[in-house]
Amino acid sequence: MDQKEISLRGAGAILTIDLAAIVANWQTLQAVSGTECGAVVKADAYGLGLHPVVKALYEAGCRTFFVAHAFEGAEVRALAPEAIIYVLNGVRPAQEYTFAAHNLRPVLNSVPEVEDWGQYCATSHKRAPDGSLLKAGLRIDTGVNQLGLKLYDLERVDHLSPLFDVTLLLSQLVTADDSIADRQIEAFDKIRARYPGVPASLANSAAIFLDNNPPLYDLVRPGYALYGGNPVPGRPNPMRPVVRLDAHIIQVRVLEPGHSVGVERLWKARGPRRVIMVAAGLADGIPSGLTDNEKHVGGKALIQGTLCPYVSDIAMDYSVIDVSDATYLERGEMVELLGKTVTIDDFAAMANVSGYEILSNLGRRCHRRYQPL
Amino acid sequence: MDQKEISLRGAGAILTIDLAAIVANWQTLQAVSGTECGAVVKADAYGLGLHPVVKALYEAGCRTFFVAHAFEGAEVRALAPEAIIYVLNGVRPAQEYTFAAHNLRPVLNSVPEVEDWGQYCATSHKRAPDGSLLKAGLRIDTGVNQLGLKLYDLERVDHLSPLFDVTLLLSQLVTADDSIADRQIEAFDKIRARYPGVPASLANSAAIFLDNNPPLYDLVRPGYALYGGNPVPGRPNPMRPVVRLDAHIIQVRVLEPGHSVGVERLWKARGPRRVIMVAAGLADGIPSGLTDNEKHVGGKALIQGTLCPYVSDIAMDYSVIDVSDATYLERGEMVELLGKTVTIDDFAAMANVSGYEILSNLGRRCHRRYQPL
Repeated sequence: MDQKEISLRGAGAILTIDLAAIVANWQTLQAVSGTECGAVVKADAYGLGLHPVVKALYEAGCRTFFVAHAFEGAEVRALAPEAIIYVLNGVRPAQEYTFAAHNLRPVLNSVPEVEDWGQYCATSHKRAPDGSLLKAGLRIDTGVNQLGLKLYDLERVDHLSPLFDVTLLLSQLVTADDSIADRQIEAFDKIRARYPGVPASLANSAAIFLDNNPPLYDLVRPGYALYGGNPVPGRPNPMRPVVRLDAHIIQVRVLEPGHSVGVERLWKARGPRRVIMVAAGLADGIPSGLTDNEKHVGGKALIQGTLCPYVSDIAMDYSVIDVSDATYLERGEMVELLGKTVTIDDFAAMANVSGYEILSNLGRRCHRRYQPL
Repeated sequence: MDQKEISLRGAGAILTIDLAAIVANWQTLQAVSGTECGAVVKADAYGLGLHPVVKALYEAGCRTFFVAHAFEGAEVRALAPEAIIYVLNGVRPAQEYTFAAHNLRPVLNSVPEVEDWGQYCATSHKRAPDGSLLKAGLRIDTGVNQLGLKLYDLERVDHLSPLFDVTLLLSQLVTADDSIADRQIEAFDKIRARYPGVPASLANSAAIFLDNNPPLYDLVRPGYALYGGNPVPGRPNPMRPVVRLDAHIIQVRVLEPGHSVGVERLWKARGPRRVIMVAAGLADGIPSGLTDNEKHVGGKALIQGTLCPYVSDIAMDYSVIDVSDATYLERGEMVELLGKTVTIDDFAAMANVSGYEILSNLGRRCHRRYQPL
């Protein structure tokens, strides 16, 4: 038993991350979209580990990365020297230097932001490593939400155009409603006409799989789908599963009718039951919504081929699962809480939260194990 | 502006942790209980940082720490060489060596666990650093939940008593119902009689503040209350607030009636509104339940003295707050999302989750800033 094995035995829960599946998903998204495929790796690559994920994708050929913050961009830069890196939350006052130092491109979201960036580019005389102007993307408001630049905003900042290169026009297509999407595409095309030759990106993962083939332009930027999330809810998931969560069994208990477990005592056994206490709780990213309560049906884990319900409240360090219908289990064994059958999307639906929230919170205390490429 | 200041400017959200308040809370709990006060520091000290928290408490005189996992215990051991460290999730097969190596005491929860620990102590000939027997706590089932040892369980493992020292009897008092508490105390005392001279711990933080003064025995073991959580829900919080969460404003937007923000577009402005987009979202531990929806009123942030509602969905990297009733705000400024007015407990109630869940998920991406002692 090597050090790594000992450390995994010490872990309460183990999050296994299939790097080959992330790469395969990226390749699928690129093939299906028929255009350049970037990768959204913000928030520590959705909680799965920025370093291994960026390394794997960069080696596979990914050359455009999206993060939320400049400090995340600086980490990507260290791993992907030749990549283009966009910072989706944009640039705040006094942050500009970080962008120049690490060759990051802010996604500019508002008129004051464009003005500040233009001012910085004009006064600092900073240049990209190849001597060209500093670069930025523009988030376009295509009429759906109000968090980007409109046509008249762009007209107001036109005089700043010579100060930096606009290298990407971004917006996000609403995939749930065709009539909205058509208006968005029309608005986007109107603005694209003002920036001839500038690459454009409108599609998230869902748009790539739409039957009506909306224009994907020059770049798609999947996030959740890369990590195995279903980009087309309600239809079979075209992505390969990426994560599996296993937890150690701390105890096996036989309960008599009326017995409760946990401090809150909201759940009581209706008949003789066998439950296990597994070493993964709120602090490991298991959401409180996973348990049965008066408003909500609760979640299930796949234990030896049988779906078994979570009972009692999710505690900070453990969860309790009713395994009466499963085969015999012993303390010290591991059980799968999340994987190919109970997927991230299932887990999120059972807990009544989004899959983004599930991924973001998993793996803070869970040990992460990477399946190599 | 030093490196640290630059790094904080780079952060989207900053979690400020008042170490002096944690120490003051520990001292209050010790004074009010009139007995030894330990500290629960599992899950990276409830997400606030194991290293600084344990260092501060150890320097203040805390000598008994509780964690959930052996690997957390090993980290505490490195910081607190003379401390007693209990591992609440107990010991699993093949984990025993870690306990002996770092002088950790498992809290034994079941008969098989007691048997395995006894067997290990008998066959390994491992000893505590002072040459005495290895040690363990016993979790007692006092009739409330079924996750500890009952009297007849203890009788079954009596022959193992010479193999290790039992140094703590633990259970948890139900504070919401006096009749249950009385039965628990009776059951606990019956078991204590079997272990003369062995310290006992029955009280969580709430019990310390109960008017009917339940017996606190030899050790109290607060967790959430140390970190500023209210141990007596519905009554004024006797603890000092510990955490504050501030986030940078990414954008300020004026919306016309009918405008929406965010991708989901579930929220629409009913009149002319001014909103801010702040750089803290799901991936920073802002729970999705904080926003208004059909089932739930949603949360508010204290912006310049005015409580302002979260609107639209919480996105992965940002939240949107309606600041129409606040004074003028600018992009780049910081706003307080959590602190003395909107406390952890308020935040949890607004999001319909527990305070434990809030603390556990904050600070994964937020930068942590410590107010020194």
